[in-house]
Amino acid sequence: MTYLSFSNQKVLDFVAIGRLCIDLNANEINRPMEETMTFTKYVGGSPANIAIGMSRLGQKTAFIGKIANDQMGRFITDYLNRNGIETENVVTDLSGAVTGLAFTEIKSPTDCSILMYRDNAADLKLTAGEVSEDLIARSKMLLISGTALAKSPSREAVFQALHYAKKHGVVVAFDLDYRPYTWESKEETAVYYNLAAEKSDIILGTREEFDMMEVFDHNPEHNDSITAAKWFDYAAKIVIIKHGKDGSIAYTGDGASHRAKSFPAKVIKTFGAGDSYAAGFLYGIMQGWTLEKSMEFGSASACIVISSHSCSDAMPTTNQVHEYIEDCNSGKITAS
Amino acid sequence: MTYLSFSNQKVLDFVAIGRLCIDLNANEINRPMEETMTFTKYVGGSPANIAIGMSRLGQKTAFIGKIANDQMGRFITDYLNRNGIETENVVTDLSGAVTGLAFTEIKSPTDCSILMYRDNAADLKLTAGEVSEDLIARSKMLLISGTALAKSPSREAVFQALHYAKKHGVVVAFDLDYRPYTWESKEETAVYYNLAAEKSDIILGTREEFDMMEVFDHNPEHNDSITAAKWFDYAAKIVIIKHGKDGSIAYTGDGASHRAKSFPAKVIKTFGAGDSYAAGFLYGIMQGWTLEKSMEFGSASACIVISSHSCSDAMPTTNQVHEYIEDCNSGKITAS
Amino acid sequence: MTYLSFSNQKVLDFVAIGRLCIDLNANEINRPMEETMTFTKYVGGSPANIAIGMSRLGQKTAFIGKIANDQMGRFITDYLNRNGIETENVVTDLSGAVTGLAFTEIKSPTDCSILMYRDNAADLKLTAGEVSEDLIARSKMLLISGTALAKSPSREAVFQALHYAKKHGVVVAFDLDYRPYTWESKEETAVYYNLAAEKSDIILGTREEFDMMEVFDHNPEHNDSITAAKWFDYAAKIVIIKHGKDGSIAYTGDGASHRAKSFPAKVIKTFGAGDSYAAGFLYGIMQGWTLEKSMEFGSASACIVISSHSCSDAMPTTNQVHEYIEDCNSGKITAS
Amino acid sequence: MTYLSFSNQKVLDFVAIGRLCIDLNANEINRPMEETMTFTKYVGGSPANIAIGMSRLGQKTAFIGKIANDQMGRFITDYLNRNGIETENVVTDLSGAVTGLAFTEIKSPTDCSILMYRDNAADLKLTAGEVSEDLIARSKMLLISGTALAKSPSREAVFQALHYAKKHGVVVAFDLDYRPYTWESKEETAVYYNLAAEKSDIILGTREEFDMMEVFDHNPEHNDSITAAKWFDYAAKIVIIKHGKDGSIAYTGDGASHRAKSFPAKVIKTFGAGDSYAAGFLYGIMQGWTLEKSMEFGSASACIVISSHSCSDAMPTTNQVHEYIEDCNSGKITAS
Repeated sequence: MTYLSFSNQKVLDFVAIGRLCIDLNANEINRPMEETMTFTKYVGGSPANIAIGMSRLGQKTAFIGKIANDQMGRFITDYLNRNGIETENVVTDLSGAVTGLAFTEIKSPTDCSILMYRDNAADLKLTAGEVSEDLIARSKMLLISGTALAKSPSREAVFQALHYAKKHGVVVAFDLDYRPYTWESKEETAVYYNLAAEKSDIILGTREEFDMMEVFDHNPEHNDSITAAKWFDYAAKIVIIKHGKDGSIAYTGDGASHRAKSFPAKVIKTFGAGDSYAAGFLYGIMQGWTLEKSMEFGSASACIVISSHSCSDAMPTTNQVHEYIEDCNSGKITAS
Repeated sequence: MTYLSFSNQKVLDFVAIGRLCIDLNANEINRPMEETMTFTKYVGGSPANIAIGMSRLGQKTAFIGKIANDQMGRFITDYLNRNGIETENVVTDLSGAVTGLAFTEIKSPTDCSILMYRDNAADLKLTAGEVSEDLIARSKMLLISGTALAKSPSREAVFQALHYAKKHGVVVAFDLDYRPYTWESKEETAVYYNLAAEKSDIILGTREEFDMMEVFDHNPEHNDSITAAKWFDYAAKIVIIKHGKDGSIAYTGDGASHRAKSFPAKVIKTFGAGDSYAAGFLYGIMQGWTLEKSMEFGSASACIVISSHSCSDAMPTTNQVHEYIEDCNSGKITAS
Repeated sequence: MTYLSFSNQKVLDFVAIGRLCIDLNANEINRPMEETMTFTKYVGGSPANIAIGMSRLGQKTAFIGKIANDQMGRFITDYLNRNGIETENVVTDLSGAVTGLAFTEIKSPTDCSILMYRDNAADLKLTAGEVSEDLIARSKMLLISGTALAKSPSREAVFQALHYAKKHGVVVAFDLDYRPYTWESKEETAVYYNLAAEKSDIILGTREEFDMMEVFDHNPEHNDSITAAKWFDYAAKIVIIKHGKDGSIAYTGDGASHRAKSFPAKVIKTFGAGDSYAAGFLYGIMQGWTLEKSMEFGSASACIVISSHSCSDAMPTTNQVHEYIEDCNSGKITAS
Repeated sequence: MTYLSFSNQKVLDFVAIGRLCIDLNANEINRPMEETMTFTKYVGGSPANIAIGMSRLGQKTAFIGKIANDQMGRFITDYLNRNGIETENVVTDLSGAVTGLAFTEIKSPTDCSILMYRDNAADLKLTAGEVSEDLIARSKMLLISGTALAKSPSREAVFQALHYAKKHGVVVAFDLDYRPYTWESKEETAVYYNLAAEKSDIILGTREEFDMMEVFDHNPEHNDSITAAKWFDYAAKIVIIKHGKDGSIAYTGDGASHRAKSFPAKVIKTFGAGDSYAAGFLYGIMQGWTLEKSMEFGSASACIVISSHSCSDAMPTTNQVHEYIEDCNSGKITAS
């Protein structure tokens, strides 16, 4: 059973709006960052990673965002272009903003952290007036990401993008991607997350992210069914709640819940798992696959990324994901 | 025909959220403010005026807002209480904010202006967490006012109040009350006004205010019918568009438009006309009157206020409005 | 003995830099402000009051400051002009700043307080580049006031004015006028007050104000002599430390201290006492009078102002001060 | 002839106050940064580099500054400690500030630029109250750097440090180090630079930096002698004005000017030249060498740094500088 349908009239498969930044990944890993002497530069940011993932999976993809008017900004646009992503709606900031940075620290495969530079970040300067209605109208799916809601004017740009998506029959996927440090308070966060979620067809997030959204609600046992049911009263068709190593569950408006099996991986770091999962899952949904098959594809995609040094640069092709699944099924890949 | 129904279960008729401030009205009028030496102090702010109006008209009324922790703030709460308005959800700011001020200049009955003090205003510090769900649940109607959307955290407080209203079957009236000086840009304004209007049952504003909300839309001739139709696709039942001295038109979802006759007045100043109109009109709607009769009552109410020195303090009782209408009908009151 | 000499070459006697604001004085007094319904508008701000005082005393006076581009700003310039004060260096703000306000509350002659509006105040927007070197060069004395040091760019404007004064042999008087609410911290305040005091010939302040300036120093018993001695190592010739109703003491570099007798007054409110004292005292110094006679003149001037409803508007002429002294000496005026 | 004398009673030779940041130097050089994929991390910031240089030259050195409470901050403190620099007055920020960053781009030895991250930088959060009077009192020389004057509260911390230095007979060296992007305006910059320069014994800067300081002065031909003379009226003993490849000139209060010969170098990049020059020169002055010999030592020190990949890490020891001078004199080192 499919829960969503996509227009065949639209020439673009996928457009994402939001954060474009730079990851600076520690080259010397399994140690504290204090002892890391060199870093490698990658394009980063959750919606950027998902867009790169979708493009690698063969989807016609575009991006709506804002970059700093500097070498980091130009590197980002170049990289998106080289990955076949349309960047005509990637606007250059002229106010002196900088590119957001994320220095990664990998003390061990399970002890990873990020040192963020988000002050005066260019991606949060995107305005509602800079969002291309035409680009969204031409797309089958719009992905929004919670971090873009953190500050004005980017917040308004996302709501305007949502308005265009609803107006033109574009399926909306909302990746919660909640980063507390860019927000003033949990209350502020919950208000805007809820306003955006009301307009979303697919909502993906961790249990903790949904808890934040329920700060004004009554769900004391953090019950997934209560959480999901709230959104089926609005536009949602699929709500995915992730429970870390206990796996993800997809809830649907018919009252069903769906799980997929997981795969082993030789983990280097955990960064990028959610983004590659999202790309793989949304790809499956767009192919008309079942939820279970789409979730399985997302999981395998995530395994590939967490076995690599980067996030964006490690996003797999369709063949790579299929191969990974086969290698797991045949016992060629086992947990480290 | 009535377009809205109100729950009989609810003990409060009317609750307003938003701006509470001080008007300092020139005592020596018909001259530039440079030459005004003394000012009289009144409670002001559009939703405060409307709430005072509703209470004078006999409605059980409450207010949700934030006041400065100073003499001006205490004067406001006292005045609301003395006018029978419930103030348990009027919160005192503890961050050092001040009371917003409006110095009025009355050069002539038709040449009036306002000098505003809105920096660090207490009313814009109301948070979403401070809004009482219970108070809204107990009310038949919630009035929101556009100025409260101008800044965080007051903006979030309004969206949270809207959420509670929808959840508890409370009719929402949205008085646009657009004041450009508190906003960053027209785009920002339009995004939040539109998000709030989507959830409103009654929308009242001037043609210019609706134009601002259509900055992203296509309505080149500023056609009222196109404007109203947009909102009937959401929650709206009544959209009132005011055309200054050409009168107001109420549009309804059945495609009809409604006008009321106007009354003569001996005008001292134009301030407060919109607020007293809103109070009179909403009062009529809550009595189950026709749109035409409600609009007529609003117009007469407005005439009384613009013939007086103050806004809030001049809000009439039911008897005063009926009397005014009779005096006009009998020719006792004529234009100045 | 005179401690300071003034150039005869200079055509202006006195120039002040800093705050220009509006006092809104309660008309109904001896009650809390909550119960005050009307207010009268006056020009206010410590350096403005002193400049008006000096002009009333017959000194050729000018002002360096910034006003809001509104009715309040224009009223201030008009009032200064009408009082014979040169305003060519009173600049109009174009950034949307407002005029600072001070609502006065007079509960009793000894229980007075002020409700200040200082957010986005025009006077604090004066820039160093707007200060006229030529105007200062033409003046015998420059008065600076501590509140103008509270924020950039006004802070820089004061230091630039001090630089011009030293360069052109202009005597500098520093009225401490410390208002905690405009400052970030006591440390910040002390640093800039000390930098300004190093360049000042006359320093006037209360014991509490000097305490604030000694936050980094060692003067545990708040000893006046230690306080004064510090400044004689820099440029100071006279340091006046005010001890409220215990009177003021003038310290001089020769190790002497000077006191003057005080006068009775029928006190309405305490506002403006310091400003009228400063005007009277500085006038005396500029006439070549002894410290004692100058202080006496300042005290009598202060008595006149605190017996009146306003500050600026009540500043006396030379004759009025002399008359007041005579009336006290003859027993015609006694304490209320 | 020596122009300055240093107290033998003091146990520390040198203390610097100000910026502590991270340089991220491109590993792949001679190309635009867009094409640089990896970066190496070093301690940076002009006063940090000079302090490291002084410590390498054998001087007992301490630092007064503020670091972010993160991995970058801890790396900085560790590095200073490993270089023998006392860090008891390096305070950890608790407000969520980040470490300033400088990404270097080396397109060619003569075409170098820096991409700065200075928003919310920890070093600018140092307060006046955090500066240790005792540490300064124990030091022979205090180095201040212009960038620390750019924002409050660091600006106040520098003025407080200057106050302690004057109080305790500590020689003050002022390295202008003007970075326009952290300042609001040239006027603001000039005011604070001039206030700090008034209290400095040694002032080092480029001709362009002195021009900025003269924005309110009259020196239309940018004449070095006029510039230097101004400061000899205050505390200055030595004023060094750098003219890029035309060399530096030291002016002294006796009216003399002093030049030193320059050395060849195989230049990799120009960053760090000024800092290593300052360290070498100040070292010489502290040894009681002539100005000429001190300047020569500074020049050789600079040559060593610009022939290396880093700034801080390349600071030479005394032996390395002497060897470099010998190698130049013997013709072993020639220009590239």
